[in-house]
Amino acid sequence: MNLDFTYQNPTTIYFGKTALDNLSDELANYGETIMLAYGKGAIKKNGLYDQIVSILKEDGKNIVELSGIMANPTYEKVVEGAKLVRDNNVDLILAVGGGSVIDCAKAISVSAYCEGDAWTRYWIKFEPVDNKIVSVASILTLAGTGSEMNGGSVITNNDVKLKMGRIFPSNVSPKFSILNPEYTFTLPKYQMVSGIFDMMSHLMEAYFSGEDDVTSDYMIEGLLRSIINSAKIAVKDLKDYEARSNLMWSSTLAMNPIMGLSKTQDWEVHMIEHQLGAYTDCAHGMGLAAISLPYYRYIYKFGLDKFVRFAKEVWRVDETGKTKEAVALEGIAALESFIKECGIVTSIKELGATEEMLPLIANSTVLLSGGYKALTAEEILEILKTAYAAV
Amino acid sequence: MNLDFTYQNPTTIYFGKTALDNLSDELANYGETIMLAYGKGAIKKNGLYDQIVSILKEDGKNIVELSGIMANPTYEKVVEGAKLVRDNNVDLILAVGGGSVIDCAKAISVSAYCEGDAWTRYWIKFEPVDNKIVSVASILTLAGTGSEMNGGSVITNNDVKLKMGRIFPSNVSPKFSILNPEYTFTLPKYQMVSGIFDMMSHLMEAYFSGEDDVTSDYMIEGLLRSIINSAKIAVKDLKDYEARSNLMWSSTLAMNPIMGLSKTQDWEVHMIEHQLGAYTDCAHGMGLAAISLPYYRYIYKFGLDKFVRFAKEVWRVDETGKTKEAVALEGIAALESFIKECGIVTSIKELGATEEMLPLIANSTVLLSGGYKALTAEEILEILKTAYAAV
Repeated sequence: MNLDFTYQNPTTIYFGKTALDNLSDELANYGETIMLAYGKGAIKKNGLYDQIVSILKEDGKNIVELSGIMANPTYEKVVEGAKLVRDNNVDLILAVGGGSVIDCAKAISVSAYCEGDAWTRYWIKFEPVDNKIVSVASILTLAGTGSEMNGGSVITNNDVKLKMGRIFPSNVSPKFSILNPEYTFTLPKYQMVSGIFDMMSHLMEAYFSGEDDVTSDYMIEGLLRSIINSAKIAVKDLKDYEARSNLMWSSTLAMNPIMGLSKTQDWEVHMIEHQLGAYTDCAHGMGLAAISLPYYRYIYKFGLDKFVRFAKEVWRVDETGKTKEAVALEGIAALESFIKECGIVTSIKELGATEEMLPLIANSTVLLSGGYKALTAEEILEILKTAYAAV
Repeated sequence: MNLDFTYQNPTTIYFGKTALDNLSDELANYGETIMLAYGKGAIKKNGLYDQIVSILKEDGKNIVELSGIMANPTYEKVVEGAKLVRDNNVDLILAVGGGSVIDCAKAISVSAYCEGDAWTRYWIKFEPVDNKIVSVASILTLAGTGSEMNGGSVITNNDVKLKMGRIFPSNVSPKFSILNPEYTFTLPKYQMVSGIFDMMSHLMEAYFSGEDDVTSDYMIEGLLRSIINSAKIAVKDLKDYEARSNLMWSSTLAMNPIMGLSKTQDWEVHMIEHQLGAYTDCAHGMGLAAISLPYYRYIYKFGLDKFVRFAKEVWRVDETGKTKEAVALEGIAALESFIKECGIVTSIKELGATEEMLPLIANSTVLLSGGYKALTAEEILEILKTAYAAV
């Protein structure tokens, strides 16, 4: 049964080599105080920081800086940013970086004027945001999370060892996002391929749900094939503009609600990875890949026809003379080969997990029921053990 | 070379069996005078008119009616609606119908307060809209044009025998659109299959351009496959909810700019059909189908690799032991078989064209250059002659 849905996504996307040329016109729509939020300084090395600061200054803006936003941004960092916003009466948070920086900016946006503890209200109790929201915009430098065109914000609270995600309504999404594929050229390959698996996982989390013949499934198959083809080119040549351009736009689409409409969706892989990340601080996409393989090999029999379709449509597995089971497993094997071809990590041990962590991760994972099999904490532990033993 | 682009699409979509439940909340955002714009009265037969009027009255709105909007809406009708808007100080134009009604509503929106002749300024000279715009919203009853989520408005001026299309910026797009697939159940099959080819044509117009490996191409292939599969079900059972639901959402996506980003795009088939429509008043999708077959059989050799890809990816033509040329032609033949299976017309004679009209249509067709072959009026005449002789 195709599910009813509501869709709205007002973010303006400026895409391509000339995308930054639109920044000045957009800034005219906001007040004079801009928070420039970024990570550990890569944008200072590649010159992007200087370009942006120069535009902000020419436009007569006051700049408030929030630097040092980490992968897996912490609630502590959100609190720091929220105070800066209040103290300086910030009019726009301009996030320059990947999903971590943009997610953190959104979290600051909803937290700055929140009464009470924002973590508890917005990431634990999922309360609607009833306070003033500060506008967010982004300049993307890492393709993966799709945060540049959605309301998602994943925050880690180290005090309680929880990494929690929330999709806020579209008024929290970036007002505009600037996407120039060339900004991703200087990114280390490790982070690029982590982002590639992240986008694929977003699509598979939506795909592996429901027994229906839904338009979204066909869209997802097409987008997965685009990602796979471009990834194979980009891992050989990090500066192939066409491949990086396709990957950047694919990542925006992959985590845009438009790709999974009418479907229940799964998202259990993300729930497990969030807790793996809370314990290990691993790269998100790497964690997703390491968990996906044992997870899909465990649940495929509960959604066999869809895994057969995945094998045929995405990986073009020839089904002649094979059982459904064999075709489904061949599809997952093709996914594994692709993961290895890209140099994506498949062992959570390699990502920093220890044997002692596994039950802690399993027991703190949020359990969902939208996929083909609702898991127990015990089943998640078995999946984690397999991902730990993997090479 | 992937082209740079800007994308913004703020329309809110309410989709599914319960979609109309959102109308009242949305109406609260607008003033008290609502223009109810619709076609020739089908919505009075199926009860939708009464449902909507009842909601409008409960919400204390004043209703101004504009009925009788025709397929291929005329500029004369736009002028009539624009006067009604001014005379009654309309706050929102609520278009209930298919693309013709929604296109007409957008045209009224930009024309009501236009100084000078809106036809000349907005559909001939393509001037930017600098006057007050009246908000538009839609309740969709026919899947095809995608007008419910874009700024497109195609208007026919009978005085000069021109059918001209224009994509207005997103502030002219519907603020919200209500899409309940059940509203399409009572539509005659002729109109349903016309809409189906319209959505396919929108995708093919974008697809058949460029030699690059662009993400949009993969998305288009997926969406075409979804349309083809659902169409085959819907032509056998007009009330199959899943198939009609997929078709309705596919039509919205197919003519949404998000599907063709980074591509030059063709649109010559639409240009020829517009003039065919201006002379014959034929159903838009039927005209597109009748022109597409001879058009693609004429231009395929100029974009051979893409037509081979179309055959393989969309129609799953087996290329083993065949020339590229043979594979490409087999893909177009598969398209033709599908058209006939759906009962779509392939002869423009059957659509009302006469031999005398053909040179008039060819000479008044807008010539574009985004596809694989820029055509002359003489070449268009040959295509029209083939479409005229087709059975």
